[in-house]
Amino acid sequence: MKTIKIGLLGLGNIGTGTYKTLEMNRSEIESTLNAKVEIVKILERDTERDRGITVPKEKFTSDPDEIFQDPEIDIVIELLGGIEPATTFMLSALKNGKHVVTANKAALAANYHELINTAKENNVILRFEASVGGGIPILGTLTGPLRANKFEEVMGILNGTTNYILTMMTKEGLDYETALKDAQEQGFAEADPTADVEGIDAANKLTILMALMFDKYVAPKDIPTTGITEITKEKIEEARSNGCKIKLIAHAWRDENDEIKYEVRPMYISATHPLANINKEFNAVFVKGNAVDDVMFYGKGAGPLPTGSAVLGDVIDISMMILK
Amino acid sequence: MKTIKIGLLGLGNIGTGTYKTLEMNRSEIESTLNAKVEIVKILERDTERDRGITVPKEKFTSDPDEIFQDPEIDIVIELLGGIEPATTFMLSALKNGKHVVTANKAALAANYHELINTAKENNVILRFEASVGGGIPILGTLTGPLRANKFEEVMGILNGTTNYILTMMTKEGLDYETALKDAQEQGFAEADPTADVEGIDAANKLTILMALMFDKYVAPKDIPTTGITEITKEKIEEARSNGCKIKLIAHAWRDENDEIKYEVRPMYISATHPLANINKEFNAVFVKGNAVDDVMFYGKGAGPLPTGSAVLGDVIDISMMILK
Repeated sequence: MKTIKIGLLGLGNIGTGTYKTLEMNRSEIESTLNAKVEIVKILERDTERDRGITVPKEKFTSDPDEIFQDPEIDIVIELLGGIEPATTFMLSALKNGKHVVTANKAALAANYHELINTAKENNVILRFEASVGGGIPILGTLTGPLRANKFEEVMGILNGTTNYILTMMTKEGLDYETALKDAQEQGFAEADPTADVEGIDAANKLTILMALMFDKYVAPKDIPTTGITEITKEKIEEARSNGCKIKLIAHAWRDENDEIKYEVRPMYISATHPLANINKEFNAVFVKGNAVDDVMFYGKGAGPLPTGSAVLGDVIDISMMILK
Repeated sequence: MKTIKIGLLGLGNIGTGTYKTLEMNRSEIESTLNAKVEIVKILERDTERDRGITVPKEKFTSDPDEIFQDPEIDIVIELLGGIEPATTFMLSALKNGKHVVTANKAALAANYHELINTAKENNVILRFEASVGGGIPILGTLTGPLRANKFEEVMGILNGTTNYILTMMTKEGLDYETALKDAQEQGFAEADPTADVEGIDAANKLTILMALMFDKYVAPKDIPTTGITEITKEKIEEARSNGCKIKLIAHAWRDENDEIKYEVRPMYISATHPLANINKEFNAVFVKGNAVDDVMFYGKGAGPLPTGSAVLGDVIDISMMILK
């Protein structure tokens, strides 16, 4: 029985979630593949932390080349986050003939073409389902079952931190600062929440969605982006009196001249729109295709196990192609 | 440039929608595939009806064997509906080495194993994304991006007719008979609504979902099924006073002994549950996986173009495998 061998970059929250998901569902996954799946090496400095999993010490390495140059490794999973060194590492892996799976929206959005082209040139697969919507299977759906459509529009609640804050402001009447503090206490916002509350994370994800839906690359820095830091209790109340809720929306659409427009900003969403009822840390992506019309996907946009679900979905897909 | 040649069984509403979707998005689809796609023969007696499309007369045939035995045809799309002759036709197509795409939940649910096994034995692909949830890409998602999960539960609003009727009863205070008449006038219910209002259509779809999610086949007739004909204005009001809406739910779940339980029946759904806000003819499928947790898919569960979107998604997928 063949073994699919994996090198994992990063054993933080998401790395640990991916490891746990594989342990939890190993027998089903291996029976689907009719092959074994093994994480053989892990790039991670912190070998001591209690992660609630048992990782043999000899799997750890602090030298990424030990992974990229190991001829036995088929797939590299990149879960370091951040643009660098993640981008350099992914490029090295691809150039060494490894298939790559990543959850890293910042690195992908910043270096989309270079990563995609390097994968093509080296005849390997680059997959990134987990980079947008976490566990929500949006990318594989757009490029799979929905691909007979010409897409007209996407509206996404793509950032759980800001959606949690806006939900608490709307439902509990909290002001922004109190809601942010609450989100930090509940683990839904980081100590430095800038990338989330300023809309940068949502813009990264919109870059990836636009590339797949409209075959159009726009760098995140070129997307007009407004975060939620100026949202007050009064604005929430004004929206409510107009039958609306305020949501941070990553929005791209085809205008009447077939041009693609795009923005990330807080929007009034009618309380009867499906996106209005996406609350707390949940994410949702609303898509309009010229044949399917409106579809929406809803789920947990982050978290170790939901993200692990998406990462391993990609791993299984690539494994099936390897094993063919 | 290679041409993917298709034989189409049935040019009714869904067949016409599929034909239109292909015409509408042909250039994008063909450029994705780097191949041409042509519907070369159509099994249909009514060659005169105005369908709003131009079909060359010579494409029509009344002899299914002209399609099954045409060595040039790669894919057969079955859109006749009903168990027979659709099942016999699909088996003939598969035995003649044709890949088959179908939207036919009744035929699939009744003859699941025979159809799946015949495809396997003949080394061809059988796809049926459109059979559950119409345009909603649920099947490809369960067997694709979500397949690293062990599934725990599915709750689906899988029948647009009954959801339309229940929505009108809830929102407009109509009684069942008036809401049914309204649905018939709006084209959301057939003259004989039995299969919809008795829950048979939803049970067919649940059979297919269970087969894919739990690898468990239960014939539709063995699923405890209650339709909506006994739902009164009073019951809707009673649900409302309990903070709930009544929805016809196709439900299957893994119990504490790892056994799969299943039923189709009207259920009280808390007004805060995502399924509570799925209204009118829309469908939605709520799935719980052991890694991804809760996800939901929402969209048009029927209609010519949404169903055409799903049928052509399968056609593109199969074409890519043929062309490899």
